[in-house]
Amino acid sequence: MKAISLTGIKPTGTPHLGNYLGAIRPALDLAQQYEPVYFIADYHALTTVQDASLMRDNIYKVAATWLALGLNPEEALFYKQSDIPEIFELNWALSCITPKGFMNRAHAYKDKVAKNIEAGEDQDYGVNMGLYAYPCLMNADILIFNANVVPVGKDQKQHVEFARDIALRFNKTFAPIFTIPEPIIQEKSDVIPGLDGRKMSKSYGNTIEIFLESKALKKKIGKIVTNTQSIEEAKDPDSCHIFALYKLFASPEATESLATRYRAGGLGWGHAKAELHHLLEETFQEARTKYFHLMANPLEIEKILDYGAQKARLRAKENMEKIREALGVS
Amino acid sequence: MKAISLTGIKPTGTPHLGNYLGAIRPALDLAQQYEPVYFIADYHALTTVQDASLMRDNIYKVAATWLALGLNPEEALFYKQSDIPEIFELNWALSCITPKGFMNRAHAYKDKVAKNIEAGEDQDYGVNMGLYAYPCLMNADILIFNANVVPVGKDQKQHVEFARDIALRFNKTFAPIFTIPEPIIQEKSDVIPGLDGRKMSKSYGNTIEIFLESKALKKKIGKIVTNTQSIEEAKDPDSCHIFALYKLFASPEATESLATRYRAGGLGWGHAKAELHHLLEETFQEARTKYFHLMANPLEIEKILDYGAQKARLRAKENMEKIREALGVS
Repeated sequence: MKAISLTGIKPTGTPHLGNYLGAIRPALDLAQQYEPVYFIADYHALTTVQDASLMRDNIYKVAATWLALGLNPEEALFYKQSDIPEIFELNWALSCITPKGFMNRAHAYKDKVAKNIEAGEDQDYGVNMGLYAYPCLMNADILIFNANVVPVGKDQKQHVEFARDIALRFNKTFAPIFTIPEPIIQEKSDVIPGLDGRKMSKSYGNTIEIFLESKALKKKIGKIVTNTQSIEEAKDPDSCHIFALYKLFASPEATESLATRYRAGGLGWGHAKAELHHLLEETFQEARTKYFHLMANPLEIEKILDYGAQKARLRAKENMEKIREALGVS
Repeated sequence: MKAISLTGIKPTGTPHLGNYLGAIRPALDLAQQYEPVYFIADYHALTTVQDASLMRDNIYKVAATWLALGLNPEEALFYKQSDIPEIFELNWALSCITPKGFMNRAHAYKDKVAKNIEAGEDQDYGVNMGLYAYPCLMNADILIFNANVVPVGKDQKQHVEFARDIALRFNKTFAPIFTIPEPIIQEKSDVIPGLDGRKMSKSYGNTIEIFLESKALKKKIGKIVTNTQSIEEAKDPDSCHIFALYKLFASPEATESLATRYRAGGLGWGHAKAELHHLLEETFQEARTKYFHLMANPLEIEKILDYGAQKARLRAKENMEKIREALGVS
């Protein structure tokens, strides 16, 4: 039996190329080595997304994105967190053995407190209990399916450490039920540059969405910041934001070929942008068709998520029955 | 349609006469005026009861006690909190609109912090997230069944105020789904005296359990503290702990008659204790038989709780579907 990997996907907006390279592709690659579990963390998103139509839209977008990019719902367990009530029951049960001090030390909460204090506000200003307690819910997310590994960025390692600690406590206090999860730290060697060369990020407003229509994509690429060199001048590929994006998607040969043309002169920024446009079109053409098909047929998405929820609940229920027995509430 | 009243019952030990007069009897009386909902708050108890066999035993005891004393599971909704997963899903959803500041101001948490500081400990020493967040779970307890009234002691009024606030917020932010609950403040005019005359309380070790066997009851009553007056001396009923308990269960006539005998002299403490013993035997005879029958047949208790859980889940599910729709996760 393969070890289980678990990936949470927060439905908080339209995914961009930075999300694709930094999170989606590495997560999809896990399927080669693990039995992958992917879940849409809609009830985590509820701490900030408090509008039903926006929530629904975000869920569809994120589900369609992952399915279009290769998530196979037959091989993977793919479900919406809110469809598994056992997670929320476990969340409560585990919170009864989770020291409050863990939440006080959680990075996201500490950042929020620091910002509040800096702004002269009460330290808990604007902090809701979902935000504060979300590491508890993450413990339940991880432990309900006995995940063996949880791939995380460095900043999220703490959550897996909490889950390990709580699993050990539960196993010792009640019964040895939980697998102790291991973090897999995802080294992000490549910083994915946005339109202005800074890290691609929604908060900088410099993103290129994965599934733009050809024309909109062209327009976005047109906004990539370049210098004022003329067409004739020889150019340095390594200081060019267009090239930086190009090489993340191109074959080594194509990358080398474009670099040579940069250095030779006679290649204008418009040409380079056209090359990038062509490459991205090619890379995502098939996925984009699938994405727009799914977005036009939300019932198909719902069917896939229902199927995943059914598979997931079978396992969640089985585990929860053992847990309830161990707690004495069965 | 009758208004709904909601009563939570924490399964944390063997109920005593103080519980009966102060909580159980007034709660059972609600059935005359309301459609009563009673639930065993086992997942609240989990913040302190972390032993499966103790938890199970407490649940049986508390269920058998209420059933024996007159709870009618056909008329009332009577269930175990942990059997209704919708409560825990709602708990999370509501926590996302509950300011952390509410928890900081909750009496039980503030008391714990004060004690920690006094003892020179970290303010959150020994505080688990279940303890800290339990007002959130109470909000879900109350709102899932659209309770109209929640009878509470003065010290618990705050919880109903939190639930009102959160219901109003939800209704405004998402959709007008929740009934705004009203607290009914139970004035405890009578302090129920324990063996030593102080308030009857587990923490003082001065309790008389409701369902003691005749011999054990006699022994307990024998421990009631009296003065050293001789049999012959005239006695003051109003300063006697035996009499104080007697009058809580006796008819006005019987009370008056015993008071007269006190004042006349010739009534020893042993006689007075025998009167109380006889009265309590009489008062609880029928209920005691039922209690021991249920405790000897836990499957009967489980059947009743399962029946209640089924009835309760139908309503919880129906409400939760509306809530999920309003949140955009349906």
